[in-house]
Formats: sequence, C-alpha cells, structure tokens
Amino acid sequence: MENQEIQKEQGDKAMFACGAQSMKLPVPVFIRESASVVGKKEGQGPLAGLFDRIGEDDLFGCDTWEEAESGLQQDALHLALAKAGLHSTDLRYLFAGDLLGQSIATSFGLAQYERPLFGLYGACSTCGLSLSLGAMAIAGGFAEYVGCVTSSHFASAEKEFRFPLGYGNQRPLSATWTVTGSGAFVLSNHRGEKARAVITGLTPGKIVDYGVKDSLNMGVCMAPAAADTIRQNLEDFGRCPKDYDRIITGDLGSVGQRALLDLLLTHGVDISAQHMDCGMEIYDAKKQDTHAGGSGCGCSAVVLSAYILKQIEEGNWKRVLFVPTGALLSKTSFNEGQAVPGIAHGVVIEHVA
Amino acid sequence: MENQEIQKEQGDKAMFACGAQSMKLPVPVFIRESASVVGKKEGQGPLAGLFDRIGEDDLFGCDTWEEAESGLQQDALHLALAKAGLHSTDLRYLFAGDLLGQSIATSFGLAQYERPLFGLYGACSTCGLSLSLGAMAIAGGFAEYVGCVTSSHFASAEKEFRFPLGYGNQRPLSATWTVTGSGAFVLSNHRGEKARAVITGLTPGKIVDYGVKDSLNMGVCMAPAAADTIRQNLEDFGRCPKDYDRIITGDLGSVGQRALLDLLLTHGVDISAQHMDCGMEIYDAKKQDTHAGGSGCGCSAVVLSAYILKQIEEGNWKRVLFVPTGALLSKTSFNEGQAVPGIAHGVVIEHVA
Repeated sequence: MENQEIQKEQGDKAMFACGAQSMKLPVPVFIRESASVVGKKEGQGPLAGLFDRIGEDDLFGCDTWEEAESGLQQDALHLALAKAGLHSTDLRYLFAGDLLGQSIATSFGLAQYERPLFGLYGACSTCGLSLSLGAMAIAGGFAEYVGCVTSSHFASAEKEFRFPLGYGNQRPLSATWTVTGSGAFVLSNHRGEKARAVITGLTPGKIVDYGVKDSLNMGVCMAPAAADTIRQNLEDFGRCPKDYDRIITGDLGSVGQRALLDLLLTHGVDISAQHMDCGMEIYDAKKQDTHAGGSGCGCSAVVLSAYILKQIEEGNWKRVLFVPTGALLSKTSFNEGQAVPGIAHGVVIEHVA
Repeated sequence: MENQEIQKEQGDKAMFACGAQSMKLPVPVFIRESASVVGKKEGQGPLAGLFDRIGEDDLFGCDTWEEAESGLQQDALHLALAKAGLHSTDLRYLFAGDLLGQSIATSFGLAQYERPLFGLYGACSTCGLSLSLGAMAIAGGFAEYVGCVTSSHFASAEKEFRFPLGYGNQRPLSATWTVTGSGAFVLSNHRGEKARAVITGLTPGKIVDYGVKDSLNMGVCMAPAAADTIRQNLEDFGRCPKDYDRIITGDLGSVGQRALLDLLLTHGVDISAQHMDCGMEIYDAKKQDTHAGGSGCGCSAVVLSAYILKQIEEGNWKRVLFVPTGALLSKTSFNEGQAVPGIAHGVVIEHVA
C-alpha cells in the first residue's frame, strides 16, 4: 500500500486547500492541435477566414441532418490528427459528446476511429467537459494523447429541441441560433515541436437552477451557472478578473451576457473588461438575423479552435478562462414544465512561451 | 518542465506495452460504499432481499416517470453516502448519467447535491463509464472521494425508445425489460475502516457495430462490443478466463449471452464457466415475464451494488471483470434506419484482503 504515499503527495498538488471545486493540473496538458468544421451560415460570419473547412450546404452530402452532424465530428477529428501529424491509433482515448438524444452524432461519427470512447453529455458545455476529462486523463498519467470532440447542428438541434424547420416558427429576440459545426482537439503530455496552448487548471461546474423556464432564452438559463463557475475559479485560484486576458463563455449570447455581468456584479466581481462570448463572435447578429447569438456545443468548440487558440498561440492573450455553458433541458423536461438548469465547465488555457 | 519526468514515470505505470486499450491503475481505488434503489418488479425478483430500498410503485410518489427516475438517483446517492458515513460535500466530483435524452434523470436528480458534475452518456454501459472515469480521477490524484451514479426506469425508457405504455405493444422473446433502479457508488483513494471492494484495472470500450438493426434484440446488438472488451482485457492483462471468478456483462440477457459466448469461442476464448449477466440475475424471466432478461443502466448498477459487491466483500469471489454493455441507439437513429452499435466498458474489481 506504499502507493498511497505517492498518490497522497500527487493529490495534494492537484487540489487547493481554499476550494475543492477547481484543480490546478499537476503537469501541463498541451493542446497539440485542433480543427474546426462549420456550416454555410458560420462560413458567412465574421470568423469565416479562420475555420478549417466550411460546408457548401448543411447536409454535407448526407441524407439526414444527424448523419451530417456525425460527419462534422469525423472530419474535425481527421483534420486535427492530420495537422498534428498523428494517426488515430496514437489517441489512447476519445472524450466526446453532442446535443442529440443518446448522443448519436458522436456514436455514429466516431465509431470508425475504433478508439476507446468516453461518451459525455453536458449540453452546450460539452467542449469544456471533454477538455476537462481529457486533460485529467493526460495529467493523471493515463495517456500520451487523447482526442476531445464535440458538435452541434442547427437543423438536428431544432428537430431535437424545438419545432420542425418546415413549421417556420417565429423566434423571439432572446433566442440563439444553434451553430452547425464541430471542433476537435488533440491533447498531449508533451509539447512536441509545437503546441497551440496549454491547459493549466480546471473548474468543473455544478448544476445551477434559478428556475427559468424559457427554452427560447437559454442565455439567461445558463448565466447563473457561468457566474458560479467564474466566481469559483477566481476564488480557488486566488485571481482577479484582470489576471485573465479574456473570460470567455460558450453561448450566452447578448441577453445572457447582460445577466452574467449583472449577476457577477452583485458579488462584487466586474468582468466587463474581460468578458467575451463565443456565441456573440461567430455571427454578425444583425446582418445574419441570428438574434441573441450562436449556441450549441459546436459554438464554443469551433470558436476555441479557430479564434481563441489563434490569439493564445500568437501570444496576444497569455491566459484565458474558457467557460462553455450548457442548458440542461430536453423536450420531455420542457413539456413536463421543468425549469432549465445550467452548467458551465471552466478551463484555464495559457500561452506556451 | 521537470514535472514531465514525474508524469512520464507515472504514465508508464498506468499503461501496458502490450495494449493501449486497458490500464492498470497505478494505485488502488476503493469502492467505499454503494447503494441500490429499485422498483416494485425488481423487488419481486430473486435479488429482492439484497436491495437497499424497494419502491411500492414505480412513480415513487412523483408526477412523472422522469421525476421518479431522478428521485431514484437522489435516493441511491443519499443512501450510499449515509452508509459510508460521509456528507455530500466530501465528494469532490460526481460522474453520472442515464438513458434519457439529454440525461435529464441525472440533471434533475443530482442538482440538489450542488457538487461539480461530469455528465456521461454510454447507454446501458454508463455504470462502467462512471466507475472508470471516477477511478481515473481518484487514481490520478484529483480527488479523495467521488460519487458515481446511474439509473434507468422501465416506463421512462419505453417512452424514450419504443412505444407508449398504453399502446400495449407485444414484445418479442428477444426483448429485455428495462430495470427501474439506480445504483450509487462512493470511490476513494483510501480504504478507511472498510471498503466493499477495490478497482485495480480498466478496459474502456470501443464502439463496435455489426450492423444489427433490431432494437428489440439489444442483447445481440451489444454482444460484439462485450466480446471485444473482454478479449482485449484478457490480452492486455495477460489473463485467461479462469483468472476471474466471474466475467459479468451488464444486460445482454439470455439471447445476447449465447451470441457473446459464441463470438468469443470463434476467437478461442471460452468464458462459459465464468460468465454471468446482470440482466439474467435480476428477474425470474419465466415467472416475471421479462423475456430475455433485464436491461438499462440501472440493471448492472443495482446488481453490482446489491449482489456482486456482496460476493466480493465476503471473499466468495476474489476478482471479477465487470462489463456493463450499452446499445447506442436513439428513436431518431432507429427511425432513420441506422444499425444499433454497442459499447462495453470493463472494470476489474477485486476483494480487499
């Protein structure tokens, strides 16, 4: 049982006395490469020039929206591996998920890679969830390389959560537009010739439920969870907002952003100078008629891969708190009158000097 | 970057040269306590005397099946914590999931614990998935205690995957009966005064798709994945079937069992003397009219907690390979004509001397 000694020591390094929710990783976990594949609308937005691949239409040559979404995951991981000069067999494990019931975009998208898969569900926070568990697997010494993949698709999500597209339902201004896209990330315990960034800490999120029931205002449903995770991260790491160049939520949109900033201000935390929301970056809301902004697991994943990691890699941003946000609803829970609780997983990503 | 040295050494301990799929845990992970809560039908089966709590009816005093399933998770974790003499705040992280779209049984069941949650989806393999990731978190030094919770509910699952109960659909003999139940497990890096068992190794599963499309014969859909994981486990650990007192699948049922034994025989592996299936243990198939057996994430979870851990704790079984099996289908994938791929996560559980 002498192993317990080793583990205890290692455990102490990974924890904080001040707060058990966050962890400082005992060794750096490098984001070796990443890739983003998006749909037509995303390819017409402000980040168009940064994505690795843009589809000509949202079926991507498939018969169904779900199959198209599976293809996005498949392509994103393929591109990330190619950019990293790795083969799929180099990945010891995959950590992946999507928004659809029973995560079918993931199951049918990643089966062909024939790698052991840890299937995840964290709604639109799944990119943070997969990076967190992937980073823990690497930092815990369980793998040299892992792959983290997430996706969403506007049409499969509308079908899963709201109204048939043909119904032409009118959307309130608080509604967000589910991003068609997938982001894939290859994590490793060594930087190799080059790494895009390094993950140094995690703040896994709790479910936070303020009782909001409006599934067409998910930004406000998720803002309390984002506020909780951000506040906890700052407390656990003993940081203030300006210790981050950006504090980046996943898909609160413009309505959720206001709620987040207000909620944090009531706790005396002002992140207005640092805050950025992936959902507000991916579309030109006015020109593209996307209302409050983009959403979906794919939103934060493709913005991380295409835009955020670029800024970090170039050293424009030295340290970022990346906080994908998820709304934990289903058609069934909504129809049964349940509220929409939120969850947000925080990942500290830094520049590799 | 001297930390990389430490990690490399630790990493080598956790891996095998012979096969990257399995991992031997670098330190033992103790199953400190567990609990099982089941429905009325499970409480009339052969394991009735072993469950911690049996419901009088399957609504458990709730308004909906989904709410009832959430209550099962809540109760199972509450009982496991009470038996372990721990408070929920002792759990650094939760690893949990269920079968429902967007895992709502988990979201609404565990929110009140206010612990950071890693949401998982592995269909009926989720008990193995949660124990695997929980064990990695402990063995990696990221927590002293974690909670692993899974559930399923006959009525919420029929509604999610098949036909409305009121429709009175006839079930073929290959069909299984979704278990109403939840199992919760508290893992720790130290054995404390007593531990029920110890996790020493993992074989996370790959998605295996033989193209079977019959969602009313899930045993056969999942058998290839179970065979793959079992074969890989034996190979990676350099073991033969008799090195395990039992090799226990989650919910193949009697039809899937035959497929599993046959598939393994074609690879020269005979596990007929060691094989047991949780789905075949939980009901008296003839008297209870459950056809091929029990299924659902709850099936393997409650049988592990109530029956398997008891045998291991008492020393009747010294080492067991526990392999919960999942069928990766959804209503949508089924209606779109997709096959039902399987996945199975292997967990090596041993007696604590």
